[in-house]
Amino acid sequence: MAPEIATDSLREAFRRGMRGLAGGVCVIATEYEGLRYGLTVTSVCSLSLRPPSLVICVNRDAEAHDPICRTRALSVNVLSASQQSTARVFGGLETERGPLRFAEADWTRSAAGLPALIGCLSNLDCHVEEIADGRTHSILICAVRAVSVDGGAPLVYWERDFHTLADARPVAAHAPGDGP
Amino acid sequence: MAPEIATDSLREAFRRGMRGLAGGVCVIATEYEGLRYGLTVTSVCSLSLRPPSLVICVNRDAEAHDPICRTRALSVNVLSASQQSTARVFGGLETERGPLRFAEADWTRSAAGLPALIGCLSNLDCHVEEIADGRTHSILICAVRAVSVDGGAPLVYWERDFHTLADARPVAAHAPGDGP
Repeated sequence: MAPEIATDSLREAFRRGMRGLAGGVCVIATEYEGLRYGLTVTSVCSLSLRPPSLVICVNRDAEAHDPICRTRALSVNVLSASQQSTARVFGGLETERGPLRFAEADWTRSAAGLPALIGCLSNLDCHVEEIADGRTHSILICAVRAVSVDGGAPLVYWERDFHTLADARPVAAHAPGDGP
Repeated sequence: MAPEIATDSLREAFRRGMRGLAGGVCVIATEYEGLRYGLTVTSVCSLSLRPPSLVICVNRDAEAHDPICRTRALSVNVLSASQQSTARVFGGLETERGPLRFAEADWTRSAAGLPALIGCLSNLDCHVEEIADGRTHSILICAVRAVSVDGGAPLVYWERDFHTLADARPVAAHAPGDGP
C-alpha cells in the first residue's frame, strides 16, 4: 500500500464514518498446537458463490492472527442477538484472555475439527487461500468448506454498541419514483 | 484461488448462511468518461485506521465494476434508513439502468469530483490501491482520501430484506459470567 499520508483529522472522520457502518457480528476461531484462539469481528464479508468464499480483515496484533495464518483454517460463527456476552469476551471487552475465552459459552467441534460455537445463526468452516497485505491488518480470502445454518435474530454492531433486528420491522418499501 | 470444488448443497448452505449475516448498505459510485456509474453493496468493510482504508468486494459482472477499476476512484455512500429506494435502484431491483439510476435521488459532487449522495450517514472518497482476484468478484483495497459524516439511523440488509436499527434498543448487556 502507499505511504501513510493521512492527517489526524482524516483519521478521526474515518473513524466516525466507520462507526456508522452497521455490521453483523462474528467470532472467528481456530485451534493451533492444541490451543484454541478466537476473535470478535465485524469484518466478515461474503465474496463469491462460485466457489463459496468470503473475506475477513484481521488485525495483525490480535492474538488469534498468527495461529489463523499458520493453520490456514478457521471457523466463522455468526452471532445471534442472545450472544452479546460472547461477542464482548472475544472482543477483549472482558477480562478473559486466550483459550480461557472459550469457557464463557458452549463450544463443540466441527467435522473438520474447528471450534464451533453452539447457538449461532450459522457456523462456517473455512480454508484461508490467500492472505493480502492490509498494513495493520491481514485480508484473509477464505474458501468455505462446510456450513451449518440454524437461523434466528442477528447481533449487529453499530455506533460502538450491540443491537438486534429482532424488534425492528423491515423498512416500508417505497414505490419507484417515490424518492428516498 | 483453488479450483472450484463446491457441491450444489454446499453452495445452497453458504447462500443461506450469508443471508443471515447482517450488513450496512452502501452505494459505491464513480464517474468515467463523463458518465456516472453506481452499485448497491453490503460488502464494504473497514480495514485499517493507519492509513484509513477499507475493502469492498464487487461483482465483475456489475456495470460499475470496469469503470471503477479504470478510474481507480470511487465514493462510498453509507445509506440511511430513509434511503431504501436508492438502495433498490442501485441494486438493480427497479427498472432504472446505467446513469439514469442517479435521477432517483439528489447527488452532488465531492471535492475530488466523485458522485456524493445527499442525505447519507457518511460519504467517503476512495482511491483503489489494489485489486485482488476473488474469481467472480474483485476485492478492492481502497485508501480513504476524504470523509464527510452526517449521522442518522442506518439501513441494514438481512435475510433479503431492508431493516433499520432506529426502533431497536441496544441489546441489554450481560455482566461477565452471566452466560450468553
